[in-house]
Amino acid sequence: MGSGSAVPTGTRNPSAQWIECNGRTFLIDCGEGTQMRIREYGLKFQKIDRIFITHLHGDHYFGLVGLLSTIHMLGRVRPMTIHGPEGLKKIVEMQLTIGGSRLGYDLLIEEIAPDSTSVLFEDEKIRVDAFPLFHKIPTNGFLVRQKPRQRTLLADKARKDGIKFEYFHRLKKGEDVEDEDGNQINFREYTAPPPRAKSYAYCSDTTYHEKVVESVKNVDLLYHEATFLDVHEDRARATKHSTATMAAKVAAEANVGKLIMGHLSARYDSGDEHVNEASAVFKNCEYVIDGDEIVLD
Amino acid sequence: MGSGSAVPTGTRNPSAQWIECNGRTFLIDCGEGTQMRIREYGLKFQKIDRIFITHLHGDHYFGLVGLLSTIHMLGRVRPMTIHGPEGLKKIVEMQLTIGGSRLGYDLLIEEIAPDSTSVLFEDEKIRVDAFPLFHKIPTNGFLVRQKPRQRTLLADKARKDGIKFEYFHRLKKGEDVEDEDGNQINFREYTAPPPRAKSYAYCSDTTYHEKVVESVKNVDLLYHEATFLDVHEDRARATKHSTATMAAKVAAEANVGKLIMGHLSARYDSGDEHVNEASAVFKNCEYVIDGDEIVLD
Repeated sequence: MGSGSAVPTGTRNPSAQWIECNGRTFLIDCGEGTQMRIREYGLKFQKIDRIFITHLHGDHYFGLVGLLSTIHMLGRVRPMTIHGPEGLKKIVEMQLTIGGSRLGYDLLIEEIAPDSTSVLFEDEKIRVDAFPLFHKIPTNGFLVRQKPRQRTLLADKARKDGIKFEYFHRLKKGEDVEDEDGNQINFREYTAPPPRAKSYAYCSDTTYHEKVVESVKNVDLLYHEATFLDVHEDRARATKHSTATMAAKVAAEANVGKLIMGHLSARYDSGDEHVNEASAVFKNCEYVIDGDEIVLD
Repeated sequence: MGSGSAVPTGTRNPSAQWIECNGRTFLIDCGEGTQMRIREYGLKFQKIDRIFITHLHGDHYFGLVGLLSTIHMLGRVRPMTIHGPEGLKKIVEMQLTIGGSRLGYDLLIEEIAPDSTSVLFEDEKIRVDAFPLFHKIPTNGFLVRQKPRQRTLLADKARKDGIKFEYFHRLKKGEDVEDEDGNQINFREYTAPPPRAKSYAYCSDTTYHEKVVESVKNVDLLYHEATFLDVHEDRARATKHSTATMAAKVAAEANVGKLIMGHLSARYDSGDEHVNEASAVFKNCEYVIDGDEIVLD
Protein backbone atom coordinates (compact mmCIF):
# COMPACT_ATOMS: atom_id res chain seq x y z
CA MET A 1 0.00 0.00 0.00
CA GLY A 2 3.10 2.18 0.24
CA SER A 3 6.09 1.63 -2.01
CA GLY A 4 7.83 4.94 -1.44
CA SER A 5 10.78 5.91 0.69
CA ALA A 6 11.18 8.72 3.22
CA VAL A 7 9.80 11.44 0.94
CA PRO A 8 6.40 10.38 -0.42
CA THR A 9 5.52 11.25 -4.00
CA GLY A 10 2.19 11.61 -5.76
CA THR A 11 2.17 7.88 -6.52
CA ARG A 12 4.35 6.36 -3.78
CA ASN A 13 3.18 6.50 -0.18
CA PRO A 14 5.29 5.57 2.83
CA SER A 15 5.81 1.87 3.56
CA ALA A 16 2.89 -0.43 4.35
CA GLN A 17 1.93 -3.91 3.17
CA TRP A 18 -1.23 -5.91 3.67
CA ILE A 19 -0.52 -9.63 4.00
CA GLU A 20 -3.11 -12.40 3.88
CA CYS A 21 -1.94 -15.91 4.62
CA ASN A 22 -4.04 -18.93 5.51
CA GLY A 23 -6.87 -16.80 6.84
CA ARG A 24 -4.60 -14.54 8.87
CA THR A 25 -4.24 -10.87 8.04
CA PHE A 26 -1.13 -8.91 8.91
CA LEU A 27 -0.06 -5.36 8.39
CA ILE A 28 3.68 -4.91 7.86
CA ASP A 29 4.81 -1.35 8.49
CA CYS A 30 2.33 1.45 8.81
CA GLY A 31 3.62 4.66 7.24
CA GLU A 32 1.70 7.92 7.33
CA GLY A 33 -1.63 7.63 5.53
CA THR A 34 -1.93 3.84 5.73
CA GLN A 35 -5.47 4.07 7.12
CA MET A 36 -6.47 6.15 4.09
CA ARG A 37 -4.90 3.54 1.78
CA ILE A 38 -6.79 0.73 3.53
CA ARG A 39 -10.00 2.59 2.85
CA GLU A 40 -8.98 3.40 -0.72
CA TYR A 41 -8.34 -0.27 -1.47
CA GLY A 42 -11.59 -1.37 0.13
CA LEU A 43 -9.85 -3.53 2.74
CA LYS A 44 -11.44 -4.27 6.11
CA PHE A 45 -9.74 -2.59 9.07
CA GLN A 46 -11.04 -5.14 11.52
CA LYS A 47 -9.52 -8.08 9.66
CA ILE A 48 -6.05 -7.06 10.81
CA ASP A 49 -4.82 -9.69 13.28
CA ARG A 50 -1.37 -8.33 14.00
CA ILE A 51 0.85 -5.44 13.04
CA PHE A 52 4.60 -5.70 12.45
CA ILE A 53 6.80 -2.60 12.45
CA THR A 54 10.35 -2.87 11.08
CA HIS A 55 11.88 0.23 12.66
CA LEU A 56 11.21 3.67 14.03
CA HIS A 57 11.86 5.88 11.05
CA GLY A 58 8.69 7.84 10.49
CA ASP A 59 7.97 6.56 6.99
CA HIS A 60 7.45 3.12 8.53
CA TYR A 61 5.19 3.91 11.49
CA PHE A 62 3.71 7.43 11.47
CA GLY A 63 0.34 5.98 10.45
CA LEU A 64 0.20 3.59 13.37
CA VAL A 65 -1.46 5.56 16.16
CA GLY A 66 -4.01 7.02 13.76
CA LEU A 67 -4.90 3.52 12.60
CA LEU A 68 -5.17 2.26 16.19
CA SER A 69 -7.48 5.15 16.99
CA THR A 70 -9.64 4.61 13.91
CA ILE A 71 -10.16 0.88 14.53
CA HIS A 72 -11.19 1.80 18.07
CA MET A 73 -13.75 4.29 16.79
CA LEU A 74 -14.98 1.74 14.28
CA GLY A 75 -15.77 -0.54 17.20
CA ARG A 76 -12.92 -3.00 17.60
CA VAL A 77 -13.07 -5.05 20.77
CA ARG A 78 -10.73 -7.95 20.08
CA PRO A 79 -7.13 -7.39 21.17
CA MET A 80 -4.46 -6.11 18.82
CA THR A 81 -0.86 -7.19 19.03
CA ILE A 82 1.92 -5.10 17.57
CA HIS A 83 5.47 -6.35 17.13
CA GLY A 84 8.11 -3.69 16.75
CA PRO A 85 11.47 -2.44 17.94
CA GLU A 86 12.30 -1.20 21.40
CA GLY A 87 10.90 2.29 21.98
CA LEU A 88 7.66 1.69 20.07
CA LYS A 89 5.64 1.09 23.24
CA LYS A 90 6.78 4.36 24.78
CA ILE A 91 5.96 6.38 21.65
CA VAL A 92 2.52 4.86 21.16
CA GLU A 93 1.55 5.12 24.81
CA MET A 94 2.73 8.71 25.07
CA GLN A 95 0.61 9.76 22.10
CA LEU A 96 -2.46 7.96 23.40
CA THR A 97 -1.97 9.41 26.89
CA ILE A 98 -1.42 13.01 25.77
CA GLY A 99 -4.46 12.76 23.52
CA GLY A 100 -6.51 11.44 26.44
CA SER A 101 -7.41 8.39 24.33
CA ARG A 102 -8.72 5.16 25.73
CA LEU A 103 -9.00 2.26 23.33
CA GLY A 104 -11.93 -0.12 23.49
CA TYR A 105 -9.65 -3.11 22.95
CA ASP A 106 -6.50 -4.44 24.58
CA LEU A 107 -3.35 -3.24 22.89
CA LEU A 108 -0.31 -5.47 23.30
CA ILE A 109 2.98 -4.08 22.10
CA GLU A 110 5.69 -6.74 22.01
CA GLU A 111 9.12 -5.29 21.51
CA ILE A 112 11.64 -7.27 19.52
CA ALA A 113 15.12 -7.70 20.98
CA PRO A 114 17.63 -6.17 18.58
CA ASP A 115 20.09 -8.26 16.55
CA SER A 116 18.36 -11.56 17.06
CA THR A 117 16.11 -13.90 15.17
CA SER A 118 12.88 -14.68 16.97
CA VAL A 119 9.53 -16.31 16.38
CA LEU A 120 6.86 -13.62 16.70
CA PHE A 121 3.78 -15.62 15.83
CA GLU A 122 2.99 -19.24 15.24
CA ASP A 123 -0.15 -21.29 14.80
CA GLU A 124 -0.83 -24.66 13.20
CA LYS A 125 -0.53 -23.30 9.67
CA ILE A 126 1.93 -20.42 9.57
CA ARG A 127 4.78 -18.77 11.37
CA VAL A 128 6.24 -15.27 11.41
CA ASP A 129 9.87 -14.63 12.34
CA ALA A 130 11.82 -11.43 12.87
CA PHE A 131 15.41 -11.25 11.68
CA PRO A 132 17.97 -8.43 11.86
CA LEU A 133 18.47 -5.94 9.07
CA PHE A 134 21.39 -3.52 8.83
CA HIS A 135 20.22 0.07 8.88
CA LYS A 136 21.04 3.25 10.79
CA ILE A 137 18.82 2.31 13.73
CA PRO A 138 17.70 -1.15 14.98
CA THR A 139 15.59 -2.65 12.22
CA ASN A 140 13.96 -6.03 11.64
CA GLY A 141 12.92 -7.91 8.57
CA PHE A 142 9.98 -10.29 8.74
CA LEU A 143 9.59 -13.78 7.33
CA VAL A 144 6.06 -15.13 6.87
CA ARG A 145 5.89 -18.80 5.98
CA GLN A 146 3.40 -21.57 5.73
CA LYS A 147 4.17 -24.73 7.61
CA PRO A 148 4.61 -27.92 5.57
CA ARG A 149 1.20 -29.37 4.87
CA GLN A 150 0.07 -33.00 4.86
CA ARG A 151 0.11 -35.02 1.63
CA THR A 152 -3.07 -34.89 -0.42
CA LEU A 153 -5.22 -38.03 -0.25
CA LEU A 154 -6.11 -39.58 -3.62
CA ALA A 155 -9.65 -40.15 -2.37
CA ASP A 156 -11.15 -41.85 -5.43
CA LYS A 157 -8.39 -44.42 -5.64
CA ALA A 158 -8.45 -45.09 -1.90
CA ARG A 159 -12.21 -45.63 -1.92
CA LYS A 160 -12.02 -47.85 -5.04
CA ASP A 161 -9.39 -50.07 -3.41
CA GLY A 162 -11.42 -50.20 -0.18
CA ILE A 163 -8.82 -48.47 2.00
CA LYS A 164 -10.39 -47.82 5.37
CA PHE A 165 -11.10 -44.24 6.48
CA GLU A 166 -9.18 -44.80 9.72
CA TYR A 167 -5.89 -45.13 7.79
CA PHE A 168 -6.22 -41.88 5.86
CA HIS A 169 -4.71 -39.76 8.58
CA ARG A 170 -1.44 -41.77 8.73
CA LEU A 171 -1.16 -42.05 4.94
CA LYS A 172 -1.52 -38.26 4.62
CA LYS A 173 1.29 -37.87 7.14
CA GLY A 174 3.47 -40.00 4.83
CA GLU A 175 3.38 -43.24 6.80
CA ASP A 176 2.92 -46.69 5.32
CA VAL A 177 0.18 -48.69 7.02
CA GLU A 178 -0.30 -52.39 7.68
CA ASP A 179 -4.00 -53.29 7.69
CA GLU A 180 -5.78 -55.88 9.89
CA ASP A 181 -5.01 -58.63 7.35
CA GLY A 182 -1.33 -57.79 7.29
CA ASN A 183 -1.36 -56.06 3.88
CA GLN A 184 1.12 -53.24 3.39
CA ILE A 185 -0.51 -49.99 2.21
CA ASN A 186 2.04 -47.70 0.61
CA PHE A 187 1.35 -44.04 1.33
CA ARG A 188 2.81 -42.99 -2.03
CA GLU A 189 0.16 -45.05 -3.81
CA TYR A 190 -2.75 -43.24 -2.14
CA THR A 191 -1.46 -39.74 -1.59
CA ALA A 192 0.17 -37.02 -3.68
CA PRO A 193 2.87 -34.67 -2.40
CA PRO A 194 1.40 -31.71 -0.52
CA PRO A 195 1.18 -28.23 -2.04
CA ARG A 196 4.51 -26.56 -1.42
CA ALA A 197 4.53 -24.39 1.71
CA LYS A 198 5.07 -20.80 0.57
CA SER A 199 7.22 -18.16 2.16
CA TYR A 200 7.60 -14.40 1.94
CA ALA A 201 10.34 -12.16 3.34
CA TYR A 202 10.18 -8.40 3.83
CA CYS A 203 13.45 -6.45 3.97
CA SER A 204 13.17 -2.72 4.44
CA ASP A 205 15.38 -0.79 5.23
CA THR A 206 18.84 -2.32 5.02
CA THR A 207 22.16 -2.23 3.31
CA TYR A 208 23.63 -5.43 1.88
CA HIS A 209 24.74 -7.92 4.53
CA GLU A 210 25.41 -11.65 4.22
CA LYS A 211 23.34 -12.29 7.35
CA VAL A 212 20.30 -11.03 5.46
CA VAL A 213 21.05 -13.62 2.79
CA GLU A 214 21.00 -16.33 5.46
CA SER A 215 17.69 -15.07 6.86
CA VAL A 216 15.81 -15.11 3.55
CA LYS A 217 17.33 -18.32 2.11
CA ASN A 218 15.04 -20.02 -0.42
CA VAL A 219 11.94 -17.91 0.16
CA ASP A 220 9.44 -17.91 -2.67
CA LEU A 221 9.06 -14.16 -2.70
CA LEU A 222 11.45 -11.54 -1.41
CA TYR A 223 10.52 -7.90 -1.00
CA HIS A 224 13.75 -5.97 -0.71
CA GLU A 225 14.22 -2.24 -0.57
CA ALA A 226 16.07 -0.76 -3.53
CA THR A 227 16.17 2.88 -2.60
CA PHE A 228 18.98 3.76 -5.00
CA LEU A 229 20.55 2.99 -8.37
CA ASP A 230 24.25 2.19 -8.82
CA VAL A 231 25.01 5.80 -9.63
CA HIS A 232 24.01 6.67 -6.05
CA GLU A 233 25.75 3.74 -4.38
CA ASP A 234 27.63 6.18 -2.15
CA ARG A 235 24.31 7.53 -0.88
CA ALA A 236 23.12 3.97 -0.29
CA ARG A 237 26.16 3.18 1.83
CA ALA A 238 26.03 6.48 3.71
CA THR A 239 22.35 6.07 4.60
CA LYS A 240 22.54 2.28 5.05
CA HIS A 241 20.14 1.61 2.25
CA SER A 242 20.44 -0.68 -0.77
CA THR A 243 20.87 -0.24 -4.48
CA ALA A 244 18.85 -2.41 -6.86
CA THR A 245 22.07 -4.35 -7.48
CA MET A 246 22.46 -5.08 -3.76
CA ALA A 247 18.86 -6.26 -3.57
CA ALA A 248 19.49 -8.57 -6.53
CA LYS A 249 22.66 -9.87 -4.92
CA VAL A 250 20.69 -10.88 -1.83
CA ALA A 251 18.06 -12.53 -4.05
CA ALA A 252 20.66 -14.45 -6.03
CA GLU A 253 22.75 -15.59 -3.06
CA ALA A 254 19.64 -16.58 -1.09
CA ASN A 255 18.25 -18.46 -4.09
CA VAL A 256 14.81 -16.91 -3.77
CA GLY A 257 11.99 -17.55 -6.22
CA LYS A 258 11.27 -13.96 -7.10
CA LEU A 259 12.44 -10.49 -6.09
CA ILE A 260 10.20 -7.45 -5.81
CA MET A 261 11.74 -4.06 -5.15
CA GLY A 262 10.24 -1.06 -3.40
CA HIS A 263 11.16 1.92 -1.19
CA LEU A 264 12.44 3.66 -4.31
CA SER A 265 13.81 7.14 -3.73
CA ALA A 266 11.57 10.01 -4.82
CA ARG A 267 14.38 11.15 -7.12
CA TYR A 268 13.54 8.41 -9.65
CA ASP A 269 10.50 8.72 -11.88
CA SER A 270 10.05 4.98 -12.44
CA GLY A 271 11.59 1.69 -11.37
CA ASP A 272 12.58 0.61 -14.88
CA GLU A 273 16.24 1.33 -14.35
CA HIS A 274 16.14 -0.54 -11.03
CA VAL A 275 14.91 -3.60 -12.90
CA ASN A 276 17.61 -3.16 -15.54
CA GLU A 277 20.37 -3.05 -12.96
CA ALA A 278 18.95 -5.84 -10.80
CA SER A 279 18.32 -8.14 -13.76
CA ALA A 280 22.04 -8.27 -14.49
CA VAL A 281 22.43 -10.11 -11.18
CA PHE A 282 19.06 -11.81 -10.68
CA LYS A 283 16.61 -12.31 -13.52
CA ASN A 284 13.22 -12.83 -11.88
CA CYS A 285 12.66 -9.37 -10.48
CA GLU A 286 10.33 -6.42 -10.76
CA TYR A 287 9.54 -3.20 -8.95
CA VAL A 288 6.26 -2.60 -7.18
CA ILE A 289 4.00 0.41 -7.03
CA ASP A 290 1.22 1.30 -4.60
CA GLY A 291 -1.81 -0.89 -5.12
CA ASP A 292 0.02 -3.89 -6.58
CA GLU A 293 -1.41 -7.22 -5.50
CA ILE A 294 0.78 -10.30 -5.60
CA VAL A 295 -0.60 -13.80 -5.14
CA LEU A 296 1.73 -16.69 -4.37
CA ASP A 297 0.32 -19.88 -5.81
CA MET B 1 -6.60 20.30 2.93
CA GLY B 2 -8.39 18.15 5.50
CA SER B 3 -12.03 18.71 6.37
CA GLY B 4 -12.70 15.41 8.14
CA SER B 5 -12.94 14.48 11.77
CA ALA B 6 -11.23 11.72 13.73
CA VAL B 7 -12.08 8.95 11.26
CA PRO B 8 -10.98 9.97 7.76
CA THR B 9 -13.19 9.05 4.82
CA GLY B 10 -12.41 8.63 1.14
CA THR B 11 -12.99 12.35 0.57
CA ARG B 12 -12.28 13.92 3.97
CA ASN B 13 -8.77 13.83 5.36
CA PRO B 14 -7.80 14.82 8.91
CA SER B 15 -7.57 18.53 9.72
CA ALA B 16 -5.11 20.82 7.94
CA GLN B 17 -5.42 24.27 6.39
CA TRP B 18 -3.03 26.24 4.23
CA ILE B 19 -3.23 29.97 4.94
CA GLU B 20 -1.68 32.70 2.82
CA CYS B 21 -1.86 36.24 4.15
CA ASN B 22 0.17 39.26 3.05
CA GLY B 23 2.99 37.12 1.74
CA ARG B 24 3.12 34.89 4.82
CA THR B 25 2.25 31.22 4.63
CA PHE B 26 0.95 29.32 7.62
CA LEU B 27 -0.15 25.76 8.15
CA ILE B 28 -2.92 25.35 10.71
CA ASP B 29 -3.15 21.81 12.04
CA CYS B 30 -1.32 18.98 10.36
CA GLY B 31 -3.33 15.77 10.40
CA GLU B 32 -2.02 12.50 9.03
CA GLY B 33 -1.28 12.73 5.33
CA THR B 34 -0.96 16.52 5.17
CA GLN B 35 2.35 16.28 3.32
CA MET B 36 0.69 14.17 0.63
CA ARG B 37 -2.11 16.72 0.33
CA ILE B 38 0.43 19.56 -0.03
CA ARG B 39 1.96 17.65 -2.92
CA GLU B 40 -1.43 16.82 -4.39
CA TYR B 41 -2.45 20.48 -4.42
CA GLY B 42 0.85 21.57 -5.94
CA LEU B 43 1.76 23.78 -2.97
CA LYS B 44 5.36 24.54 -2.07
CA PHE B 45 6.57 22.92 1.17
CA GLN B 46 9.28 25.50 1.69
CA LYS B 47 6.85 28.41 1.63
CA ILE B 48 5.55 27.44 5.06
CA ASP B 49 6.66 30.10 7.53
CA ARG B 50 5.02 28.80 10.67
CA ILE B 51 2.87 25.92 11.82
CA PHE B 52 0.02 26.22 14.33
CA ILE B 53 -1.38 23.12 16.07
CA THR B 54 -4.68 23.41 17.93
CA HIS B 55 -4.42 20.35 20.16
CA LEU B 56 -2.93 16.92 20.57
CA HIS B 57 -5.64 14.68 19.22
CA GLY B 58 -4.04 12.68 16.44
CA ASP B 59 -6.29 13.90 13.65
CA HIS B 60 -4.80 17.36 14.17
CA TYR B 61 -1.07 16.59 14.32
CA PHE B 62 -0.12 13.06 13.22
CA GLY B 63 1.23 14.45 9.94
CA LEU B 64 3.56 16.90 11.66
CA VAL B 65 6.78 14.94 12.20
CA GLY B 66 6.57 13.43 8.72
CA LEU B 67 6.23 16.90 7.25
CA LEU B 68 9.15 18.22 9.31
CA SER B 69 11.24 15.32 8.07
CA THR B 70 10.25 15.80 4.44
CA ILE B 71 11.04 19.52 4.38
CA HIS B 72 14.44 18.65 5.85
CA MET B 73 15.08 16.12 3.10
CA LEU B 74 13.94 18.64 0.51
CA GLY B 75 16.68 20.95 1.73
CA ARG B 76 15.16 23.42 4.16
CA VAL B 77 17.70 25.50 6.02
CA ARG B 78 15.67 28.42 7.34
CA PRO B 79 14.22 27.91 10.82
CA MET B 80 10.71 26.62 11.40
CA THR B 81 8.56 27.73 14.30
CA ILE B 82 5.67 25.65 15.53
CA HIS B 83 3.08 26.92 17.98
CA GLY B 84 1.11 24.27 19.80
CA PRO B 85 -0.12 23.07 23.16
CA GLU B 86 2.03 21.88 26.02
CA GLY B 87 3.37 18.40 25.36
CA LEU B 88 3.97 18.94 21.67
CA LYS B 89 7.68 19.56 22.10
CA LYS B 90 8.16 16.31 24.01
CA ILE B 91 6.29 14.26 21.41
CA VAL B 92 8.10 15.74 18.43
CA GLU B 93 11.52 15.52 20.01
CA MET B 94 11.00 11.95 21.13
CA GLN B 95 10.06 10.85 17.63
CA LEU B 96 13.01 12.64 16.08
CA THR B 97 15.39 11.25 18.69
CA ILE B 98 14.22 7.64 18.46
CA GLY B 99 14.40 7.85 14.68
CA GLY B 100 17.97 9.19 14.92
CA SER B 101 16.89 12.18 12.85
CA ARG B 102 18.77 15.42 12.68
CA LEU B 103 17.09 18.28 10.89
CA GLY B 104 19.09 20.63 8.69
CA TYR B 105 17.20 23.63 10.10
CA ASP B 106 16.45 25.01 13.52
CA LEU B 107 13.14 23.82 14.88
CA LEU B 108 11.52 26.06 17.46
CA ILE B 109 8.51 24.70 19.26
CA GLU B 110 6.71 27.36 21.24
CA GLU B 111 4.14 25.94 23.58
CA ILE B 112 0.99 27.92 24.23
CA ALA B 113 -0.10 28.40 27.83
CA PRO B 114 -3.55 26.87 28.26
CA ASP B 115 -6.67 28.96 28.82
CA SER B 116 -5.19 32.25 27.76
CA THR B 117 -5.21 34.55 24.78
CA SER B 118 -1.78 35.31 23.45
CA VAL B 119 -0.10 36.90 20.46
CA LEU B 120 1.85 34.19 18.64
CA PHE B 121 3.15 36.13 15.68
CA GLU B 122 3.20 39.75 14.64
CA ASP B 123 4.86 41.76 11.92
CA GLU B 124 4.08 45.08 10.32
CA LYS B 125 1.17 43.67 8.32
CA ILE B 126 -0.48 40.84 10.22
CA ARG B 127 -0.92 39.26 13.59
CA VAL B 128 -1.84 35.76 14.78
CA ASP B 129 -3.43 35.18 18.18
CA ALA B 130 -4.26 32.01 20.06
CA PHE B 131 -7.45 31.85 22.08
CA PRO B 132 -8.93 29.05 24.21
CA LEU B 133 -11.40 26.53 22.84
CA PHE B 134 -13.46 24.16 24.99
CA HIS B 135 -12.65 20.56 24.17
CA LYS B 136 -11.69 17.40 26.07
CA ILE B 137 -8.02 18.36 26.22
CA PRO B 138 -6.35 21.80 26.09
CA THR B 139 -7.14 23.27 22.69
CA ASN B 140 -6.55 26.61 21.02
CA GLY B 141 -8.25 28.43 18.23
CA PHE B 142 -6.27 30.81 16.03
CA LEU B 143 -7.10 34.26 14.78
CA VAL B 144 -5.22 35.57 11.76
CA ARG B 145 -5.80 39.21 11.01
CA GLN B 146 -4.39 41.95 8.89
CA LYS B 147 -3.42 45.15 10.61
CA PRO B 148 -5.24 48.31 9.58
CA ARG B 149 -3.58 49.66 6.49
CA GLN B 150 -2.78 53.28 5.56
CA ARG B 151 -5.26 55.30 3.54
CA THR B 152 -4.83 55.15 -0.23
CA LEU B 153 -3.27 58.24 -1.79
CA LEU B 154 -5.29 59.82 -4.61
CA ALA B 155 -2.07 60.32 -6.55
CA ASP B 156 -3.47 62.03 -9.65
CA LYS B 157 -5.32 64.65 -7.66
CA ALA B 158 -2.36 65.27 -5.34
CA ARG B 159 -0.01 65.76 -8.28
CA LYS B 160 -2.50 68.01 -10.07
CA ASP B 161 -2.83 70.26 -7.01
CA GLY B 162 0.94 70.33 -6.55
CA ILE B 163 0.96 68.59 -3.17
CA LYS B 164 4.56 67.88 -2.29
CA PHE B 165 5.78 64.30 -2.13
CA GLU B 166 7.09 64.80 1.40
CA TYR B 167 3.53 65.23 2.74
CA PHE B 168 2.17 61.98 1.27
CA HIS B 169 3.28 59.86 4.19
CA ARG B 170 1.37 61.89 6.77
CA LEU B 171 -1.73 62.23 4.61
CA LYS B 172 -1.83 58.42 4.15
CA LYS B 173 -1.65 58.07 7.92
CA GLY B 174 -4.76 60.28 8.12
CA GLU B 175 -3.10 63.49 9.32
CA ASP B 176 -3.87 66.95 8.02
CA VAL B 177 -0.78 68.87 6.98
CA GLU B 178 0.10 72.55 6.99
CA ASP B 179 2.47 73.39 4.14
CA GLU B 180 5.34 75.93 4.10
CA ASP B 181 2.98 78.71 3.10
CA GLY B 182 0.57 77.96 5.95
CA ASN B 183 -2.08 76.26 3.78
CA GLN B 184 -4.08 73.48 5.40
CA ILE B 185 -4.06 70.23 3.42
CA ASN B 186 -6.97 68.01 4.39
CA PHE B 187 -6.06 64.32 4.31
CA ARG B 188 -9.61 63.35 3.32
CA GLU B 189 -9.25 65.38 0.15
CA TYR B 190 -6.17 63.52 -1.06
CA THR B 191 -6.66 60.02 0.28
CA ALA B 192 -9.35 57.36 0.23
CA PRO B 193 -10.15 55.04 3.13
CA PRO B 194 -7.80 52.01 3.21
CA PRO B 195 -8.90 48.53 2.09
CA ARG B 196 -10.56 46.91 5.08
CA ALA B 197 -8.19 44.75 7.13
CA LYS B 198 -9.44 41.16 6.89
CA SER B 199 -9.57 38.56 9.61
CA TYR B 200 -9.98 34.80 9.82
CA ALA B 201 -10.64 32.62 12.85
CA TYR B 202 -10.17 28.87 13.09
CA CYS B 203 -12.14 26.95 15.73
CA SER B 204 -11.58 23.22 15.88
CA ASP B 205 -12.37 21.33 18.10
CA THR B 206 -14.76 22.87 20.61
CA THR B 207 -18.18 22.80 22.07
CA TYR B 208 -20.24 26.02 22.26
CA HIS B 209 -18.90 28.53 24.75
CA GLU B 210 -19.56 32.27 25.00
CA LYS B 211 -15.84 32.91 25.41
CA VAL B 212 -15.36 31.61 21.89
CA VAL B 213 -17.90 34.16 20.72
CA GLU B 214 -15.81 36.91 22.35
CA SER B 215 -12.65 35.63 20.71
CA VAL B 216 -13.98 35.62 17.16
CA LYS B 217 -16.06 38.80 17.36
CA ASN B 218 -16.55 40.47 13.97
CA VAL B 219 -14.12 38.33 11.97
CA ASP B 220 -14.71 38.28 8.23
CA LEU B 221 -14.49 34.52 7.98
CA LEU B 222 -15.03 31.95 10.69
CA TYR B 223 -14.11 28.30 10.28
CA HIS B 224 -15.94 26.41 12.99
CA GLU B 225 -16.12 22.69 13.51
CA ALA B 226 -19.58 21.20 13.06
CA THR B 227 -18.90 17.56 13.79
CA PHE B 228 -22.54 16.70 14.44
CA LEU B 229 -26.14 17.43 13.48
CA ASP B 230 -28.84 18.28 16.02
CA VAL B 231 -29.96 14.65 16.14
CA HIS B 232 -26.57 13.82 17.66
CA GLU B 233 -26.39 16.79 20.04
CA ASP B 234 -25.86 14.39 22.94
CA ARG B 235 -22.76 13.03 21.22
CA ALA B 236 -21.56 16.57 20.61
CA ARG B 237 -21.87 17.42 24.30
CA ALA B 238 -20.32 14.15 25.45
CA THR B 239 -17.29 14.53 23.18
CA LYS B 240 -17.08 18.32 23.55
CA HIS B 241 -17.72 18.95 19.91
CA SER B 242 -20.24 21.19 18.19
CA THR B 243 -23.36 20.72 16.15
CA ALA B 244 -23.93 22.83 13.06
CA THR B 245 -26.45 24.80 15.11
CA MET B 246 -23.84 25.58 17.78
CA ALA B 247 -21.38 26.73 15.09
CA ALA B 248 -24.06 29.00 13.66
CA LYS B 249 -24.86 30.35 17.13
CA VAL B 250 -21.23 31.39 17.55
CA ALA B 251 -21.25 32.97 14.08
CA ALA B 252 -24.44 34.90 14.80
CA GLU B 253 -23.49 36.10 18.28
CA ALA B 254 -20.02 37.09 17.12
CA ASN B 255 -21.43 38.92 14.12
CA VAL B 256 -18.97 37.32 11.69
CA GLY B 257 -19.05 37.89 7.95
CA LYS B 258 -19.29 34.29 6.88
CA LEU B 259 -19.25 30.86 8.49
CA ILE B 260 -17.59 27.80 6.98
CA MET B 261 -18.07 24.43 8.64
CA GLY B 262 -15.76 21.42 8.64
CA HIS B 263 -14.64 18.48 10.80
CA LEU B 264 -17.85 16.73 9.83
CA SER B 265 -18.26 13.27 11.31
CA ALA B 266 -17.67 10.36 8.94
CA ARG B 267 -21.25 9.23 9.66
CA TYR B 268 -22.66 11.92 7.35
CA ASP B 269 -22.44 11.55 3.59
CA SER B 270 -22.58 15.27 2.85
CA GLY B 271 -22.76 18.59 4.64
CA ASP B 272 -26.10 19.64 3.15
CA GLU B 273 -28.01 18.98 6.34
CA HIS B 274 -25.38 20.89 8.33
CA VAL B 275 -26.06 23.91 6.15
CA ASN B 276 -29.81 23.46 6.55
CA GLU B 277 -29.58 23.43 10.32
CA ALA B 278 -27.01 26.22 10.57
CA SER B 279 -28.92 28.49 8.16
CA ALA B 280 -31.83 28.65 10.56
CA VAL B 281 -29.51 30.54 12.93
CA PHE B 282 -27.00 32.21 10.64
CA LYS B 283 -27.62 32.63 6.92
CA ASN B 284 -24.21 33.14 5.35
CA CYS B 285 -22.76 29.68 5.87
CA GLU B 286 -21.49 26.70 3.94
CA TYR B 287 -19.60 23.50 4.54
CA VAL B 288 -16.15 22.89 3.15
CA ILE B 289 -14.57 19.85 1.55
CA ASP B 290 -10.94 18.97 0.97
CA GLY B 291 -9.42 21.10 -1.75
CA ASP B 292 -11.70 24.12 -1.30
CA GLU B 293 -9.96 27.43 -1.76
CA ILE B 294 -11.46 30.54 -0.19
CA VAL B 295 -10.23 34.02 -1.01
CA LEU B 296 -11.11 36.94 1.22
CA ASP B 297 -11.33 40.10 -0.82
